[in-house]
Formats: sequence, structure tokens, C-alpha cells
Amino acid sequence: MNPDAVPQTTIARLPIYLRCLLQAQAAQMPVVNSGTIAKMMGSNPAQVRKDFSYLGELGTRGIGYDVASLISHISRRLGLTATRRVAIVGFGRLGQALQSYGGFHERGFEVVAVFDTDPAKVGVGFGQLVVRHIDEMRTTLPEEGAEIVIIATPAGVAQRMADAAVASGVKAILNFAPISIEVPEEVAVRHVEMAVELQILSFHLANKAE
Amino acid sequence: MNPDAVPQTTIARLPIYLRCLLQAQAAQMPVVNSGTIAKMMGSNPAQVRKDFSYLGELGTRGIGYDVASLISHISRRLGLTATRRVAIVGFGRLGQALQSYGGFHERGFEVVAVFDTDPAKVGVGFGQLVVRHIDEMRTTLPEEGAEIVIIATPAGVAQRMADAAVASGVKAILNFAPISIEVPEEVAVRHVEMAVELQILSFHLANKAE
Repeated sequence: MNPDAVPQTTIARLPIYLRCLLQAQAAQMPVVNSGTIAKMMGSNPAQVRKDFSYLGELGTRGIGYDVASLISHISRRLGLTATRRVAIVGFGRLGQALQSYGGFHERGFEVVAVFDTDPAKVGVGFGQLVVRHIDEMRTTLPEEGAEIVIIATPAGVAQRMADAAVASGVKAILNFAPISIEVPEEVAVRHVEMAVELQILSFHLANKAE
Repeated sequence: MNPDAVPQTTIARLPIYLRCLLQAQAAQMPVVNSGTIAKMMGSNPAQVRKDFSYLGELGTRGIGYDVASLISHISRRLGLTATRRVAIVGFGRLGQALQSYGGFHERGFEVVAVFDTDPAKVGVGFGQLVVRHIDEMRTTLPEEGAEIVIIATPAGVAQRMADAAVASGVKAILNFAPISIEVPEEVAVRHVEMAVELQILSFHLANKAE
């Protein structure tokens, strides 16, 4: 598949399709139709069919999609056939919450290194890991085979941490700091800004009240 | 404004526009054009112009948009003219990280109540707040004027917590639990699933490697 051919909005939905399909599988449903998936997604059947068509999955008219086949298909598209190794930079409350977040491991992600600058934290064991100083990123990230760096630092140092990750050869960054970071074009960045989600809800509240 | 007239994808970008404009204002830029904003957003100028046109902001050809006016306009659209009160349900590491997340307060959100079921936590002070039992949601949420509930529980109890929030009259939920929740149509839900973001990055890594 040429990844450029799949719209970004479809890509962003693939993991959610995967979650719905895993739920369907757990509920002993061998086949689902686009209507069922749309209902689980909060989407509409036409969009489901269109998204799946980008993946070359056309289903069978009047019957639907084979759940096991779609799960394997989307997992492969998402590169989830092997465990991906992740490092966390910034080991305050948020970094610690992410390190112990159950959802990562069960989706095929393993946290292999955590970094901070606080002398009270560096060298301290946390579960199976020892907190390392951020100056060690350049050697540790390649050594540990970390492919994704999660930035959970304050806004003021996030860009510097991103630069250090990129200099270490990392090609994917998940940014939780409340600021946009700039990276070279070949590096993928996703930005989770929690206040943004609250602001979107605020918009809905404001317009309901009118 | 009729909120139905503004596409969901535009709404989702409003807080990001706001952040870019605040950065521009901090950098002493009184006027910005769509190209500058697009660069800050990682978007394109045509999309910026289209989004702003939904807001009735057309700018001045060859000059651009007035930064202060756009900030005030978008803030009003987002309902950010008053502080919004937020409650957190589930006070493990993630809930605690969210409670102390600096980004909320500076964007006009105040955490006014936190809930858990753990007897070791209930009744314990945390900053200015005391952790309450989830059975108190129904009385505490209206008393404290909480308009938004953040769910930071394990997946298994998230739906029950959402039901309790809805029963208390809450109309906006931000869900961090790794499972979809169902709510009545008049309740707005945003779902932050952190593993989904990693899976999207995984997709990019997989397709770059091919």
C-alpha cells in the first residue's frame, strides 16, 4: 500500500476500527456489517465502507466483513505485528501515569526507557526501569531500540527534548506538552493536548446554552 | 452562530488556532496571514481561510487577520469567556496527573472535585481538594457547578461512571479510559485514547520502512 493514498482522516480511524473489531470478536461475532461498525464508532455506514475500500477490503454485499480477516488486515497496516519500543521523556506525574498505563502494553507497545533531569529521580528504579538523565538519550534510545518517544515535559523544554530525540534517530514522537514542536519532515508527530479537548467540549456547552 | 453549521473538523481546530494566535500575540505580531497560521498549524492556507470563513472572519486581502480580534472571536466561540468547572473521576496516577496539569488552569478550566473508590484515597486532601467517594457524584457535581467530567478510570468501570455523570446533569465528558462509552445524544463526549495515538505513529513507521 502507498501510505500517501490513504487519507490522514482514515488513518486516524484505523486504530478505532481495530478496537471495535476486537470488541466484536470478543462478543463472538464472526462477521460484521458497516452499520454495526458505524454504530460502535459513532460514525455512519457510508464512511465505514469508504474507509475500508481504501484498505482494499470490500466485504460481501448483504453479508458484511469477516472480523478475523479485518483485524489481521488493519493490524498489519498499523505495523502492529511486532511489539514497538517506546521511551518516555519527562517523568513527572504524567510521565509516570503513561509508564503504568495498562492500555499501551496490551496494544503492543513496551516502555523500555524513561528520562528526566531531576537529580532526585535520576538513578531511581521504577518498576523494571531505572530513570535516566536526558543527556543519555542519544546513547540509550538506539541501544534500547526505542522507535517512539513520548514527550511528557513542561512546555518550555519540549522542543529541546524533541530535537534530542530526532538527533538520536527517532522517527516518531507523541507530544503531550502543551506546545507545538517542530521536527524534520520525515519525523511523524502526534500532539495530544488535553486542554484542547476540554475547549472543544466547552464549545459544545456554550452553543447548547444559547 | 448555529453550531450545526460549523463542521466538526473545524471545531476541533479552533483551540489549535487559538493557541497559534496566542503565540503570535506573545511574539508581538498584530496581524497574521493565512500562510503564517497554516505554517504554525502544520496545515495549508486554503484550509485556514475556509475555517475562518465559517466563523465570519474574512480578514483583509493582502494584509491578513487582526490577531487580537481573532483571539477574542475564537475565545467567545469556544465559550472561554468564563472559567469552566471540571471534575475528575478516577484518581489514580492519570487522574492525579490531570489534576496537576498546568495547561488546564491557564486555559480557563478549574478542577473543583475529584472522585475515587479506593478507601485509602477517599477523604484524603490533595492540594486544595479532598478526594470524594464516587457515590457522592450526584450531590457534589451540581453543588460544585461542575460542567465537564473527566473519566480517568480503568476501562471496566468507565461506562458506569459516565452514567453517573449523566444522571447528575453533566453535559460534557472527556474520556481517558481505553473503551468507548455511550451517552444520550445531548451529551458531548471526547475520547482521548493514548494507545490510539501510538498506533497512528506505528502506521507511519511501518509504511516508512517498506
